[in-house]
Amino acid sequence: MARINENYLKLPGNYLFSAIGKKVREYETAHPQAKIIRLGIGDVTQPIVPAVIEALHAAVEEMGKAESFRGYAPDLGYSFLRETISEKDYKEKGCDISPEEIFISDGAKCDCGNIQEIFGLNNTIAVCDPVYPVYVDSNVMAGRTGVYIPETGQYQEVVYMPCTAENGFVPELPGTVPDLIYLCFPNNPTGAVMKKDQLQKWVDYANEHDSVILYDAAYEAYISEPDIPHSIYECTGARECAIEFRSFSKTAGFTGLRLGFTVIPRDLKTGGQELWPLWARRHGTKYNGAPYIIQRAGEAVYSEAGRKQVREQIACYMENAGLILNGLKKAGYTAYGGVNAPYIWLRTPGDMSSWEYFDRLLSTLQIVGTPGVGFGPHGEHYFRLTSFGKREDTIEAMERFTSFPA
Amino acid sequence: MARINENYLKLPGNYLFSAIGKKVREYETAHPQAKIIRLGIGDVTQPIVPAVIEALHAAVEEMGKAESFRGYAPDLGYSFLRETISEKDYKEKGCDISPEEIFISDGAKCDCGNIQEIFGLNNTIAVCDPVYPVYVDSNVMAGRTGVYIPETGQYQEVVYMPCTAENGFVPELPGTVPDLIYLCFPNNPTGAVMKKDQLQKWVDYANEHDSVILYDAAYEAYISEPDIPHSIYECTGARECAIEFRSFSKTAGFTGLRLGFTVIPRDLKTGGQELWPLWARRHGTKYNGAPYIIQRAGEAVYSEAGRKQVREQIACYMENAGLILNGLKKAGYTAYGGVNAPYIWLRTPGDMSSWEYFDRLLSTLQIVGTPGVGFGPHGEHYFRLTSFGKREDTIEAMERFTSFPA
Repeated sequence: MARINENYLKLPGNYLFSAIGKKVREYETAHPQAKIIRLGIGDVTQPIVPAVIEALHAAVEEMGKAESFRGYAPDLGYSFLRETISEKDYKEKGCDISPEEIFISDGAKCDCGNIQEIFGLNNTIAVCDPVYPVYVDSNVMAGRTGVYIPETGQYQEVVYMPCTAENGFVPELPGTVPDLIYLCFPNNPTGAVMKKDQLQKWVDYANEHDSVILYDAAYEAYISEPDIPHSIYECTGARECAIEFRSFSKTAGFTGLRLGFTVIPRDLKTGGQELWPLWARRHGTKYNGAPYIIQRAGEAVYSEAGRKQVREQIACYMENAGLILNGLKKAGYTAYGGVNAPYIWLRTPGDMSSWEYFDRLLSTLQIVGTPGVGFGPHGEHYFRLTSFGKREDTIEAMERFTSFPA
Repeated sequence: MARINENYLKLPGNYLFSAIGKKVREYETAHPQAKIIRLGIGDVTQPIVPAVIEALHAAVEEMGKAESFRGYAPDLGYSFLRETISEKDYKEKGCDISPEEIFISDGAKCDCGNIQEIFGLNNTIAVCDPVYPVYVDSNVMAGRTGVYIPETGQYQEVVYMPCTAENGFVPELPGTVPDLIYLCFPNNPTGAVMKKDQLQKWVDYANEHDSVILYDAAYEAYISEPDIPHSIYECTGARECAIEFRSFSKTAGFTGLRLGFTVIPRDLKTGGQELWPLWARRHGTKYNGAPYIIQRAGEAVYSEAGRKQVREQIACYMENAGLILNGLKKAGYTAYGGVNAPYIWLRTPGDMSSWEYFDRLLSTLQIVGTPGVGFGPHGEHYFRLTSFGKREDTIEAMERFTSFPA
């Protein structure tokens, strides 16, 4: 008799964004006239930039002609893209990452979810609290977390690293040494960053304890201040202990095109075993490459025109972030992030619960945000807004806030 | 200390097609003048059809304009595509499959590799021998197969179902009842098919024993004879025991575009637990949807023009199959398949081993094929050719065979 993977039953309720979607649809059905502004899910709203559109059309043309048609992509990605990334994202910034250490994929979410497969089930994972749910949920599904304790909102065998206003939303080094450490900076959901010397401490810690850092740098393009690392490989020794995830979703608006990559340095070994061949084997066995036309689109992001155009988009989103921060401040809120990240992390007024605030914001202002507690128990009493909305919507949302002060 | 997933170390050597690629590259380096003809890997060579190219361009245009830009796709796929598939692939053919039972993905390889995740590690799997390597390897990585026995070329805890000339390459019902049964018809690599009454026996068997059939129908578009099911849901009771995988790769030349889907009927339960929500949860947690432009491309395959154009491509490939079958027959070979599938399965001459024949074919005729033993021990002394080559290459390959009779 076939048996299901019982680990799935440990997951409480729905995936956060599915749950929010359901609530919003119900509200819309009940209030068809309401003009809802979505500052919840981290989806972009600006169209794909012209340089990328042009590359897409050109690649589509190639696919329609026998002499230039491309079938299966190389498992690990086309050389033209791996070489461009190695050069522009790493070597030009002083990080020694070769093209073969870059694995092209259809997005950082998939990579962050799948990476745990190459590690044994007997590893302890550490995550920030609050945290992007994929890191934890993918480990729950694999059976690496123990059971869910409803009273604490935590899994029994996960090392949680609280990120609070007190520590500037940057976790302390854990007392119990974990085997796999998920870090995401600039952070989703808090918008916090680590300075280079802070991140260096984590790299040293991982090397000292033979832990592996799984570093999600999906938001590096939003860094505006100096001295904040864009890549973990800016730290000494990171090639020996860290895997890095990058995404085109937030850098160039590829949420609907799907492109990302993972870096696994050849120096990264655990128990004497290189991790690179394991991930290569996983790619070769369970993945069939990102579409050629999408990889050409990714390449165009690095062209002179492409870079300029995506920088303008990011600048525009960061102006939104400024508008939100100011608007919240005027309305009397305490809010964080929004300077080196597209996320604003606000404290709910009057110690309201995150979900209660979600419901109030939706019913009173018709604004959708993300309940902080959805990212973990230390997100309770917090709420995430994103700067990915349209300018006019962002402005209108902040006007609405003036009638709903903290 | 981080520990790797030791199951990966059970996998012997490289993934089949990577190993072949390496051998061919080495040969090319040593013989830069050689004109190699590739009839090995199952990759298509004809360009994407005009109706699909047109849809791609139109969707790219949409992505470049603020008013029509699309961000994250719905986790499980766009309704326009799920509804089209439900209607055209199922309802029009008498199969009761609703849009919500269709999960859009970036290809059948990923789905076939990932589906095992929703089942417990305590399930026994059964596979045909020979078999498409992904079914087995993904279960090895998960730890469901026991160790590899080099003497037999098999994993200790897998139920292998020999497919031989004697049984027409259609397996017998296994004596030891497996929990998960992988079936692929039209078959890769043998090109064999099951008639409807044969497949019905498997459905009855699965329902009797509470097993789940994982049915790979990636090649259904190549069926030319009547009475051969295009979908397992043509069989009575399949909604209670079967998951089906489909692909646009071989139907419409999407190997480089990446699109496929998985069908999980809501009636499919194991131990009282519906499988649909588990796969939905997996999609929601570890996947972010197929690109919008690719889903529009998939939709265009079902348009009147699209259907006509892809049918012509398939007809062309099947003419290649006929040329190969005839050519091999003339050269004195025993060969199978090639009538309802793009694969031709030949018996190596003089009881030569599959890899020895691979090396001989490459060095003597500069033709690349796939060693049968790469698909399992019962593939030894067999060899796979595919009909996906260009017409002129296929003709030339068969001319070369006349100088290399069996």
